[in-house]
Amino acid sequence: MDRPVTPRIAIIGAGPSGLSQLRSFALKESAGEHIPEIVCFEKQSDWGGMWNYTWRTGLDEYGEPVHGSMYRHLWSNAPKECHEFADYSFDRHFSKPIPSFIPRETFREYILARAEQSNIRRYVQFNTVVSYVDFDSEKRSFSVQTRHLSTGKRCIEYFDYVIVAVGHFSMPNIPYISGIETFPGQVIHSHDFRDARQFVERDILIVGGSLSAEDIALQTFKFGAKSITISYRTKPMGFKWPSKIEEKPLLEKIEGRTAYFPDGSTRQFDSIILCTGYKHHFPFLADDLRLDTNNCLYPSQLYKGIFFQNQPRLIYLGMQNLFFSLSLFDCQAWYVRDVLLGRTLLPDTSKRKEDMLAWKTREEQLEGKEESIDFQTSYLKNLAEATDYPLTDLSLDATAATFKIWVADKQSNIINYRDKPYTSSITGTKATICSTPWMETQNVSNAGSS
Amino acid sequence: MDRPVTPRIAIIGAGPSGLSQLRSFALKESAGEHIPEIVCFEKQSDWGGMWNYTWRTGLDEYGEPVHGSMYRHLWSNAPKECHEFADYSFDRHFSKPIPSFIPRETFREYILARAEQSNIRRYVQFNTVVSYVDFDSEKRSFSVQTRHLSTGKRCIEYFDYVIVAVGHFSMPNIPYISGIETFPGQVIHSHDFRDARQFVERDILIVGGSLSAEDIALQTFKFGAKSITISYRTKPMGFKWPSKIEEKPLLEKIEGRTAYFPDGSTRQFDSIILCTGYKHHFPFLADDLRLDTNNCLYPSQLYKGIFFQNQPRLIYLGMQNLFFSLSLFDCQAWYVRDVLLGRTLLPDTSKRKEDMLAWKTREEQLEGKEESIDFQTSYLKNLAEATDYPLTDLSLDATAATFKIWVADKQSNIINYRDKPYTSSITGTKATICSTPWMETQNVSNAGSS
Repeated sequence: MDRPVTPRIAIIGAGPSGLSQLRSFALKESAGEHIPEIVCFEKQSDWGGMWNYTWRTGLDEYGEPVHGSMYRHLWSNAPKECHEFADYSFDRHFSKPIPSFIPRETFREYILARAEQSNIRRYVQFNTVVSYVDFDSEKRSFSVQTRHLSTGKRCIEYFDYVIVAVGHFSMPNIPYISGIETFPGQVIHSHDFRDARQFVERDILIVGGSLSAEDIALQTFKFGAKSITISYRTKPMGFKWPSKIEEKPLLEKIEGRTAYFPDGSTRQFDSIILCTGYKHHFPFLADDLRLDTNNCLYPSQLYKGIFFQNQPRLIYLGMQNLFFSLSLFDCQAWYVRDVLLGRTLLPDTSKRKEDMLAWKTREEQLEGKEESIDFQTSYLKNLAEATDYPLTDLSLDATAATFKIWVADKQSNIINYRDKPYTSSITGTKATICSTPWMETQNVSNAGSS
Repeated sequence: MDRPVTPRIAIIGAGPSGLSQLRSFALKESAGEHIPEIVCFEKQSDWGGMWNYTWRTGLDEYGEPVHGSMYRHLWSNAPKECHEFADYSFDRHFSKPIPSFIPRETFREYILARAEQSNIRRYVQFNTVVSYVDFDSEKRSFSVQTRHLSTGKRCIEYFDYVIVAVGHFSMPNIPYISGIETFPGQVIHSHDFRDARQFVERDILIVGGSLSAEDIALQTFKFGAKSITISYRTKPMGFKWPSKIEEKPLLEKIEGRTAYFPDGSTRQFDSIILCTGYKHHFPFLADDLRLDTNNCLYPSQLYKGIFFQNQPRLIYLGMQNLFFSLSLFDCQAWYVRDVLLGRTLLPDTSKRKEDMLAWKTREEQLEGKEESIDFQTSYLKNLAEATDYPLTDLSLDATAATFKIWVADKQSNIINYRDKPYTSSITGTKATICSTPWMETQNVSNAGSS
């Protein structure tokens, strides 16, 4: 079978990265260019991916794993100025300066407003889960098997390109802790954490030492937990915690309500929250198409952090450990678009390998958060300069500086870091100061039903 | 491709029904008969299906939905005498009379001891999930696609028969309740209920009116919940509940902590437990192979309650609403074995249809629990008489009588019904009386790790 004249592209997921990809093509189309045929498969009933808060945990109404890991009172944990679309500024959306840290509803509204204005909903097939993708060497195209969740109907379609945009904060990594099966209280992974008010007056054990542990400790503290013990594997976060929050090395075992720590101390808990991270998880991909990576800045199988080396018509968006997020997705999506439109040519296998190796080698030499921020900034520069995405080196350098200030600000005041205003590197607008300190805000609207 | 001389059978699931099937063949094999080639795919790392208690909820360590719905302090909710293998009595296993109601560990031990003695572990491929089954009309056999969970490797094998033995108490039915997304407390389905001690001193709303609601109300009462409100859809269970337990019609909505009931009353709750049942769920089967049924006594697509009418080489075990359990699985498994060994011939399509229709018509006329028990007893008689499974009509009638006594006993004393001894219809042995009333037992061992 010959490849069709108009190539067909499957995008898996209509979350932020998938929406970036759709917008990148829609902009060209509205400028009068001929674009490929695009189908975006989304298992949820609406777009927005992780930003669709749900009260559900575990399995959804169709028996599919719940995608969402958001909790009701989640706020952005970095200044919004670090997560600004270069082509859709906060000023443009909100028409006036607002504070740097915003609740999830506001962030979602910002992301989805750009999508709504992009005329891209027509590409999305909702309630459709991709169950299997393989490369059919006879047809020289990908077979994509889908299942419509409310009807159960399966379908196989063929595509020239597959873009995996499913994110990597959805499949919980849940390690076994010796004796955890004897614990009488609630044990949940942060993926299933929904409302801190469940933990009022409770003694909580948080297992983990990264961003989820940090933020859920703050959440439960804010809403009145009795005590919070954070048990870390590698090293303490080392913030100036309030007296109710304490960090301890990884517990050795649990017996009933009691956790045993390496320093010989023990403590009784009411609840355990496993903030043990997420896995890059692609059970729907054939063995030889599946990205195998930990959460790093440069997954070693991806040219430009995007194109699967052994089959570069398979594309992964946003699989990096993310400092940048929305602008990273955009930079990748614009680059992908230009490759798929034939404007940018991919080098041959060995040249790609050489380039990947150089980035990976550089990543392996990084020390500390600041160098990691610089690395990802360079990565975005490298992508942005190849396309018409309106993100300049100057702006990226300014955002990198903001990231570093934010890291230092958290170090000096973990409790109140969300009260500080930062400056947009896109518009130069300085954020306002929130009238209520974050630690006192509780009145977030309750979005997300069904 | 010709069908092989020795047919190949795939069994999906190594829980009680799958184990019955394996035993049925192994008995013939050990008697010197030639049996088909059998592969049993089990996604868990051990057999026992639902009886493997796990502390995990939601997704397992491989991102698969957790199969288990057991809670730590679960006890059998019907006398063990209603769930006795005809070829492996409680007397044979325990060597002495024991009480009629037993904790899950004891029940599991009984089920698995027979399996261990059957030399059937060699048939089972553990940690292997069946991801897709289709009928290949060219090869005239089933293609069964599997994925090994720890390696991620996929495999396709071909089989002449597929036996679906995955149970139907694993995929939660989770309805939306107006406003539930505003509830600040914990919301779980009974599938994720693990330990009643999480609910000490809490005001609990249980939604549902069947066995899960009944037993979780008793559990949470036993372990010290402050109050339990059961909100039913169709009708109240009507037991003589203690004052802490109350039944109310289905709530209309939730606003924050407050539930609104049709009688105009409102009540505040700390936690919601959805005891809203399970779905028959087979996402791994091709559209035209998938059983579509509610939880009834005679699924209308299954001849003998077993053979899929449109493709009778596809076999479903245990898909009925269960009064009987282990002996029902055995009766079905022995019947299946005899069909697959060519000893019993299936009638043609129209004869099968006629038979199914007669059973279905009879089911539709049933009124009340007693008639349902009689219906399922007749069903077992019909299967048992066709095979060498050692279950007599006399014994089945005696078990039916026990079921009816148990139903009446619960009606007269829901709190203490588990303290009564019943008599085995297999051995005539009368159970002992438990030294500690069930309401006072708390010291169950903690099984189930990893």
